[in-house]
Amino acid sequence: MLGNFSYCNPTKLYFGDHALEYLNNELPKYGKNVVLVYGKNSIKQNGIYDEVVEILKKNDKSIAEISGIMPNPTVEKLYEGIDIARKHKADLILAVGGGSVCDYCKAVSVSVNCDEDPWEKYYVQFDEPTCEIIPVGCVLTMVGTGSEMNAGSVITNHKTKMKVGHVFADESIMPKFSILNPKYTLTLPKYQMVAGIYDIFNHICEQYFSGEDDNTSDYISEGLMKSLIHSSYIAIENSQNYEARSNIMWTATWALNTLVSRGKSTDWMVHMLGQAVGAHTDATHGMTLAAVSIPYYKYIMPYGLSKFKRFAVNVWGIDENGKTDEEIALEGISAMEKWMQDLGLVMNTSDLGVTEDMIEDIAKSTIILEGGYKSFTHEDIVAVLKQSL
Amino acid sequence: MLGNFSYCNPTKLYFGDHALEYLNNELPKYGKNVVLVYGKNSIKQNGIYDEVVEILKKNDKSIAEISGIMPNPTVEKLYEGIDIARKHKADLILAVGGGSVCDYCKAVSVSVNCDEDPWEKYYVQFDEPTCEIIPVGCVLTMVGTGSEMNAGSVITNHKTKMKVGHVFADESIMPKFSILNPKYTLTLPKYQMVAGIYDIFNHICEQYFSGEDDNTSDYISEGLMKSLIHSSYIAIENSQNYEARSNIMWTATWALNTLVSRGKSTDWMVHMLGQAVGAHTDATHGMTLAAVSIPYYKYIMPYGLSKFKRFAVNVWGIDENGKTDEEIALEGISAMEKWMQDLGLVMNTSDLGVTEDMIEDIAKSTIILEGGYKSFTHEDIVAVLKQSL
Repeated sequence: MLGNFSYCNPTKLYFGDHALEYLNNELPKYGKNVVLVYGKNSIKQNGIYDEVVEILKKNDKSIAEISGIMPNPTVEKLYEGIDIARKHKADLILAVGGGSVCDYCKAVSVSVNCDEDPWEKYYVQFDEPTCEIIPVGCVLTMVGTGSEMNAGSVITNHKTKMKVGHVFADESIMPKFSILNPKYTLTLPKYQMVAGIYDIFNHICEQYFSGEDDNTSDYISEGLMKSLIHSSYIAIENSQNYEARSNIMWTATWALNTLVSRGKSTDWMVHMLGQAVGAHTDATHGMTLAAVSIPYYKYIMPYGLSKFKRFAVNVWGIDENGKTDEEIALEGISAMEKWMQDLGLVMNTSDLGVTEDMIEDIAKSTIILEGGYKSFTHEDIVAVLKQSL
Repeated sequence: MLGNFSYCNPTKLYFGDHALEYLNNELPKYGKNVVLVYGKNSIKQNGIYDEVVEILKKNDKSIAEISGIMPNPTVEKLYEGIDIARKHKADLILAVGGGSVCDYCKAVSVSVNCDEDPWEKYYVQFDEPTCEIIPVGCVLTMVGTGSEMNAGSVITNHKTKMKVGHVFADESIMPKFSILNPKYTLTLPKYQMVAGIYDIFNHICEQYFSGEDDNTSDYISEGLMKSLIHSSYIAIENSQNYEARSNIMWTATWALNTLVSRGKSTDWMVHMLGQAVGAHTDATHGMTLAAVSIPYYKYIMPYGLSKFKRFAVNVWGIDENGKTDEEIALEGISAMEKWMQDLGLVMNTSDLGVTEDMIEDIAKSTIILEGGYKSFTHEDIVAVLKQSL
């Protein structure tokens, strides 16, 4: 049942190969002081940095920079950024990069005017901000996390060995605007591209595989999955196909901007397992998800059989004739597995460096969430991880 | 191809059988003076009026009322409302009703501070507002138009025999919040319920049947159509099924809040034909759409054959084996026709009072839009209308 929920997503999106021009529409809405945030040097190599700086200067902005945002932004880097944003009296924080840069900017935005320790307040206590928030804008250069249109932010604390995501409740923490130019994604190496595609697919699965009802969200999810599967085959044949990369980029945004979770309890155990594997191997996020997914879904299939049957028929076009529900459901998982192999995803955690003797430790650091078809115990986690080797 | 577009939809939605409670969250954001707008007496009979007024009073609001909003709000009624809102120094315009009430409130909101004639400015010249806009909130009691989460507003001018819709470009004209309680829709007579269901379906069709590309919007549209078809069969069996009515309500919002038109040229000729039939018969909007749809889609099918084939397979599950594209496409339209008959929709314009001698006049008043699979001439319009008798 759809039940009771709220939905609000005010981020303004500019999409397409001319999208950056619209930065000129947005900048006049904010004060003079912009903090420009990016990762390593790739945006300097591909020219995006120069284009953005030119537009900022044309709009008479004073620029401070935070560079070197890492794939898993650390709490130390957060403190550094808060300091820069405070000194610059930031009116706007402009993320130029992928989900990590965007996540990081949201963390800075809720911390600049916060008197408490932001790690403790937001990522341990999961408090909501009580201070004034600095607006965030985003120029997206990688695809997958959906951070460009949600209020999520993941920060890593190496001292306490915690990588924690906080999905803030207040929609004012979502980026005010995001610029999505699919051309920026064309230069991504294939390994990163397919890892991103699987991250998107799994975001949808995490929301889809929960609940027993005829929910509109599930139908939308099925549409998004079919679009993604279709475009992914075009993209692995020709990574320069703009149309396929456009559809992948747009699907990524809608896979995790809260729409398809409306009325759903949601699962997220594949992400918990994948993040634990990632913390012990430093492997690419999407690949950690891929490596645990098939064992996980086979393990929970009996507890959500009707949804797995529906997944087989509606997403993968499995013929139901003369088959038991279990057979249909398993054929769906097999079709998904074949697609993952076709993409060239990492299908086993051993290929990411996991060995049998690491499993107990990985299982211990796996956060267990409720909401999916099966309540997990430590033993369940161990069983799935063993299957994933 | 997805191409270049922007998307922004900041309306905050509260959904579910406790949704009205959240009016208490929203009211403190606005000043003291609220203009309460509604249609005839139904909200007084079913108690919604009393509940809303109680919440307004509890929040210490001063209330002025505009009542008697008709299904096709007139320009005279608009002038009357502007006058009331000005005298009350409105801080918030609160719509309690269906799409007509919501459309009307948006028209008032852009006109209160406007020095020019709003009919001339917004519905003849299609100008955007240059004045300050009064915020609109919505408590939705009927389902179909999507007006609760878009910037569209239809106003009728009987003197000039024009019923004109203006979809404003500025997202600040969208309702600031909308309260969607599916229980409010349970008392609607079946005729109105199925007319609303077809209105929703046709909104999706108008956007889906355009373009030749593999567009994510089309996949989302197919999901919404399948959800709607599924829930509609439950709703006609048992109109009190809360889950089905919930899914229908949620689908209606997403069918016309601009999401599924992103990257599409869109058609809207069924609406143009239906509105012309409506202007000559005063028939229910959804029924005018139903009565012209099958002749229209059969007429344009050869010009968009691959999409009609896809519609047959992806939405209606038509088996492609051993059939020509034309046969598959036609089977899809037949499946849609059977569903419409199952719902009890009006399938011919003659059943709405149209006679052969009226066709020339109806055709003359049909606005021709480009964007669909075939550019229409006056003769094409006449041919479709003749088929619809």
